[in-house]
Amino acid sequence: MFRLHHIVHRSSPVLHQTKTLSSCLRQHTRLKTQGPPLQCGLKRFSTAEVPVEARDPSRMRERTLTMETLNPQVKAVEYAVRGPIVIKAGDLERGLQQGVKQPFTEVIKANIGDAHAMGQQPITFLRQVVALCCFPELMDSPSFPDDAKQRARRILKDCGGQSLGSYSASQGVECIRRDIAEHITHRDQGVPAEWNNIYLTTGASDGIMSILKLLVSGQDRSRTGVMIPIPQYPLYSAAISELGAVQINYYLDEANCWALDIEELQRAYLTAKKHCQPRVLCIINPGNPTGRVQSKKCIEEVLHFAYEENLFVMADEVYQDNVYSSDCQFHSFKKVLFDMGTEYFNNVELVSFHSTSKGYTGECGFRGGYMEVLNMDPQVQTQLIKLLSVRLCPPVSGQAAMNVIVNPPQVHEPSYAQFTKEKSSVLDALAHKARLTEQILNSVPGIKCNPVQGAMYAFPQIFIPPRAIEEAQSLSMAPDMLYCLKLLEETGICVVPGSGFGQREGTYHFRMTILPSPEKLEVLLEKLKKFHLRFLEEYSQQEPQISSSSSSSSSSKDHHRQISTQPD
Amino acid sequence: MFRLHHIVHRSSPVLHQTKTLSSCLRQHTRLKTQGPPLQCGLKRFSTAEVPVEARDPSRMRERTLTMETLNPQVKAVEYAVRGPIVIKAGDLERGLQQGVKQPFTEVIKANIGDAHAMGQQPITFLRQVVALCCFPELMDSPSFPDDAKQRARRILKDCGGQSLGSYSASQGVECIRRDIAEHITHRDQGVPAEWNNIYLTTGASDGIMSILKLLVSGQDRSRTGVMIPIPQYPLYSAAISELGAVQINYYLDEANCWALDIEELQRAYLTAKKHCQPRVLCIINPGNPTGRVQSKKCIEEVLHFAYEENLFVMADEVYQDNVYSSDCQFHSFKKVLFDMGTEYFNNVELVSFHSTSKGYTGECGFRGGYMEVLNMDPQVQTQLIKLLSVRLCPPVSGQAAMNVIVNPPQVHEPSYAQFTKEKSSVLDALAHKARLTEQILNSVPGIKCNPVQGAMYAFPQIFIPPRAIEEAQSLSMAPDMLYCLKLLEETGICVVPGSGFGQREGTYHFRMTILPSPEKLEVLLEKLKKFHLRFLEEYSQQEPQISSSSSSSSSSKDHHRQISTQPD
Repeated sequence: MFRLHHIVHRSSPVLHQTKTLSSCLRQHTRLKTQGPPLQCGLKRFSTAEVPVEARDPSRMRERTLTMETLNPQVKAVEYAVRGPIVIKAGDLERGLQQGVKQPFTEVIKANIGDAHAMGQQPITFLRQVVALCCFPELMDSPSFPDDAKQRARRILKDCGGQSLGSYSASQGVECIRRDIAEHITHRDQGVPAEWNNIYLTTGASDGIMSILKLLVSGQDRSRTGVMIPIPQYPLYSAAISELGAVQINYYLDEANCWALDIEELQRAYLTAKKHCQPRVLCIINPGNPTGRVQSKKCIEEVLHFAYEENLFVMADEVYQDNVYSSDCQFHSFKKVLFDMGTEYFNNVELVSFHSTSKGYTGECGFRGGYMEVLNMDPQVQTQLIKLLSVRLCPPVSGQAAMNVIVNPPQVHEPSYAQFTKEKSSVLDALAHKARLTEQILNSVPGIKCNPVQGAMYAFPQIFIPPRAIEEAQSLSMAPDMLYCLKLLEETGICVVPGSGFGQREGTYHFRMTILPSPEKLEVLLEKLKKFHLRFLEEYSQQEPQISSSSSSSSSSKDHHRQISTQPD
Repeated sequence: MFRLHHIVHRSSPVLHQTKTLSSCLRQHTRLKTQGPPLQCGLKRFSTAEVPVEARDPSRMRERTLTMETLNPQVKAVEYAVRGPIVIKAGDLERGLQQGVKQPFTEVIKANIGDAHAMGQQPITFLRQVVALCCFPELMDSPSFPDDAKQRARRILKDCGGQSLGSYSASQGVECIRRDIAEHITHRDQGVPAEWNNIYLTTGASDGIMSILKLLVSGQDRSRTGVMIPIPQYPLYSAAISELGAVQINYYLDEANCWALDIEELQRAYLTAKKHCQPRVLCIINPGNPTGRVQSKKCIEEVLHFAYEENLFVMADEVYQDNVYSSDCQFHSFKKVLFDMGTEYFNNVELVSFHSTSKGYTGECGFRGGYMEVLNMDPQVQTQLIKLLSVRLCPPVSGQAAMNVIVNPPQVHEPSYAQFTKEKSSVLDALAHKARLTEQILNSVPGIKCNPVQGAMYAFPQIFIPPRAIEEAQSLSMAPDMLYCLKLLEETGICVVPGSGFGQREGTYHFRMTILPSPEKLEVLLEKLKKFHLRFLEEYSQQEPQISSSSSSSSSSKDHHRQISTQPD
């Protein structure tokens, strides 16, 4: 029933022993809090890949850095988006390339919001500007448009020695910060943004980590509590573990299309207050992994709550350009705060994060991003600059990429038409794929998917039959991990178990991106559908307590009803 | 005597009040451990630069994030290379541009190893490869050489979707890791390097921070002790503060050209053992800020010591290509360890760091780098990968830049001649400037500079007359901070006080880079010489206890003797 391969430690560069998948997984789950997520693979290392020490059995001494002496806060970190399933997917992919037979011909990685890896083409103007900055000799080339050259010249003028190879100021290149402030002012219909409050970052993750670092302090009962949505993007839980803060979960309302319910926020806050000092409230809007675009009213309530409870608000708005539902609109936390009046706008401490990695550019590899701080204590802001300066500066090519996003070609400029066409093409395709994903998933008995209003992911709830849950438990692994592993092994589709993002107990999900091309996405969803039905059938047989019907399709229908009505 | 400008908080984005330089500095020094390094500037903010809240005096509520609630480990961080003097230099520069009169026409920033900002030209081949990766349409351009196109194609082939915009693996692009391993094997005359032990990083700082994060654990007496050289590059002390580890200083031997003395290492270790658990030994070779290139014998002794005491060794080898003295040679820690025999080579835990920012490329803005781990526990290595994966990946353009450094054009390839010429030209110029700096500095009475054998800095000892020390003390500031501030104000030369790197008590230094063009460097050194003589004269007058002679030059000679013979 469960195919047991002989597999070996994979990402661990030293080959110790062969293991079965189940033993490997058992160990993984057992070690979740006390040890490393174990990576499983399908092939042995070639000798060339095995470090010298592994070939030398003479090692006698205890190491200085071992699992016992490792920083326990690092040990506690988990990050499912690049976890064991993804590593296994890589192994399967390499296996296929080397001719290993599988029940599929291709691994489809729908685990991570990596648009270009899924075939999305870069925005020409953005790449032209960065290439010109990188190799200014191209300024003489007639094949580059004048507006791209002007942008590149403008950026280089603010770089030391007019070179992309100089460190920028720790906060970023000045003209780029000014452009960002102008862009935000425009986005928020005139709400002022100050360039001194803008900090370029190495992707959004880097900014989020830097701000959390400032906020975390105290020990024991006075420890800093950080409120995060469940489900969440696991950067948050990982950062909280790394910093030794307290994670406070507030659950998004799946039955209400993953809305943020203010009463749940209050419940979480009051419960947490008993054992820590809640100081930070994180919101991801549009939601990752939920795809929810929060309403203006909801954001108002959240900000009112933050004001009342003196919470520092971190608004992850990296998907602000990814809104697909025609009845949804992106509302920035800052604009909503402004509309609530000066008492709120002058007091709530707010940081908003953006990135080059998402939106219509999908430039993940450039590691570009920015954050805007509002109402941050000026002395603290000086401390933030000091902290950032230790790492010197964010990558300057990523800053240049960010510049194009906030300052795209204008209507009178030569690149405007192509830029606009490329941008619409990406966003239209994403909107189409968001609908396609939701529709096909909801056609599967035992799967229920909220509308993908924004961002890049679907986070459907899946029904897992009790017998599959038992099997997972016997392997000491999360039931949705078992599901996703089997999905990968049988179909080559790589998605991330909901347990990596958090979910209400007894519910199971997975996160998949909507990034594959429409053709590939359709194939993926059809394969997923067939897999799911097989999975239900397999685990529903000889399962008297679930359904008396021997027909898997009618039993699946029951599951579907069950899933749609269960409270969450 | 000390020109007191009306200055204002500068990097703090909110304008509070005008201050005198001395009050500003007094506050800075007082706040060193309890607050932010205060930034001083010469001009007021324009209204556009002042955030909204600063214009609104109605703020009544206490903030959530204040200097009182800020993470104390962040508060404790110091990073002089981008500290208050450098911010002041930026202000002076902007003032000059706006027509503010100064006793100089140009600010020369010799504070940071930022080669391109000082006019160094990029290596053409490197920029061609990165531009081609960034904008592959250029593959059709006849103005790019074939070898650059081949390298770019090879890198892109290993990128998801063949795009620089995809996330790479957390450890970096595979072919780049393989090239690095091959390069190291070649560099170390055949000592094997395994590509699985290579991790690309966001500059060397990022790698150093990641490794320290793994190593730090424990509380109170069991806290992790990290041995660092004094003087050090302040990333180390900053990282130690941020992580809450214990800094263990071992002093380099200034009288012996900043050699690393093994007895001093032992002294520092034994002293520290009384109050913490020393687990990590950091070495910077070639030295920053010392310019020392350590001998093979010294490295052997260090490694023997690390073996005996079970210390994890972190070798900062980012200046490995920057060796200028003909009687010096770079010896990698790994090669020396190999030569010590298998017992050492199979046991000492070692990580070495490299970077695109230094060497002959000076590509700081790309934030490229790598680390090689040796003898790291395989399970810990899995944890390292997990930790890195939370930040997704290093910037891919920086990885591409790193690739060119480890895999330059070969002798039969079209770009070889130009590449070799450009590389030699940069390194020859640096060697010339290293000698020039040492010579001129040593011609100044009251300044003594060890040979700049490698890296990019001189770290001369300066004699500061007792009256200047008294004045600095009355301003609660380090005497070399007073010296460097006056140097900046009077000459526009920006260097960093020795106190930012650490130095033996009662000795004073500054760090300056050797990066300005030879012409500018000569001007800088002549101005510095004149300033120093003026400084000595100014503070030696009416100073009966120092010198009975009223001639400043003869009194300076005394100082020179004093400086050369004092023990350190």
